[in-house]
Amino acid sequence: MNDPLMTIIQQVISAWASQNKLVTQFFNQYPEADYEKEVAPGRNRAIYLLGHLVAVNDGMIPLFDKGDRLFPQLETPFLKQPDKASNEFPPIAELKNQWEVLNNTLAKHFDEMTASEWMDRHTAVSEADFALNPRRNKMNVLISRINHQSYHLGQLILLKP
Amino acid sequence: MNDPLMTIIQQVISAWASQNKLVTQFFNQYPEADYEKEVAPGRNRAIYLLGHLVAVNDGMIPLFDKGDRLFPQLETPFLKQPDKASNEFPPIAELKNQWEVLNNTLAKHFDEMTASEWMDRHTAVSEADFALNPRRNKMNVLISRINHQSYHLGQLILLKP
Repeated sequence: MNDPLMTIIQQVISAWASQNKLVTQFFNQYPEADYEKEVAPGRNRAIYLLGHLVAVNDGMIPLFDKGDRLFPQLETPFLKQPDKASNEFPPIAELKNQWEVLNNTLAKHFDEMTASEWMDRHTAVSEADFALNPRRNKMNVLISRINHQSYHLGQLILLKP
Repeated sequence: MNDPLMTIIQQVISAWASQNKLVTQFFNQYPEADYEKEVAPGRNRAIYLLGHLVAVNDGMIPLFDKGDRLFPQLETPFLKQPDKASNEFPPIAELKNQWEVLNNTLAKHFDEMTASEWMDRHTAVSEADFALNPRRNKMNVLISRINHQSYHLGQLILLKP
């Protein structure tokens, strides 16, 4: 495993895994009711951000051509709608469980993907567009999802007493 | 330039560049006094986060063996000390200028670095330790700095009215 391409791919996957761990730790830290709080006055509640991370990350399954989303029911409340548009959020325990199931599923896919699969187009880009811009590959999706997750992790952390 | 290793490296560098742009845009958006505000009650002020990002990113120059930090004077107020420990911050205009100078300097280095340079150890790890863990390379430093920057960008954005 001294192929530099696989080394970088594994480094990106490992950055992803260590972030997931931080999110999990954060949501195991406080009493459940605390996650109903806004991260800053008038901003998203922690429970919304957890559902949002599950919904965004779940989108990688179809983008990577690995089947359908695991939790399509989260798309409307956590992707299409902003926080507080609906009061019908699942209980935090259910979201935490979905977070774990999704991470395990993604980890398994990532582990099995070859370098050429990572460097190939994601399903939202056509072959013609990909030929014009070969950076629109699956690796790019993962890099952008990692940044998205760091962004919201920086907000979640503000809830710390 | 169809080498997949260089493609990934360039994707990571490009994720970095597009984030820098978002930070720059954010700090050009509001009157200077606004950046004296905390991103959330009792949390860091935006001006501290800008100085902190300059100080952290500046550390890549020595880590990548490209010389000394450009702004060593920022280490104490923005790395070693938390916000509000000192009131002797440079004016925001000076920090914004340092941010630009640093980004241009780093971009030039990144542009010139070869794939094998990216995959080689950073200067804070010994040859022996690097042999044990070849992921402690320069690429890993950049990936972690990108995440660090997203994390704080997620906080800065909360200052938006």
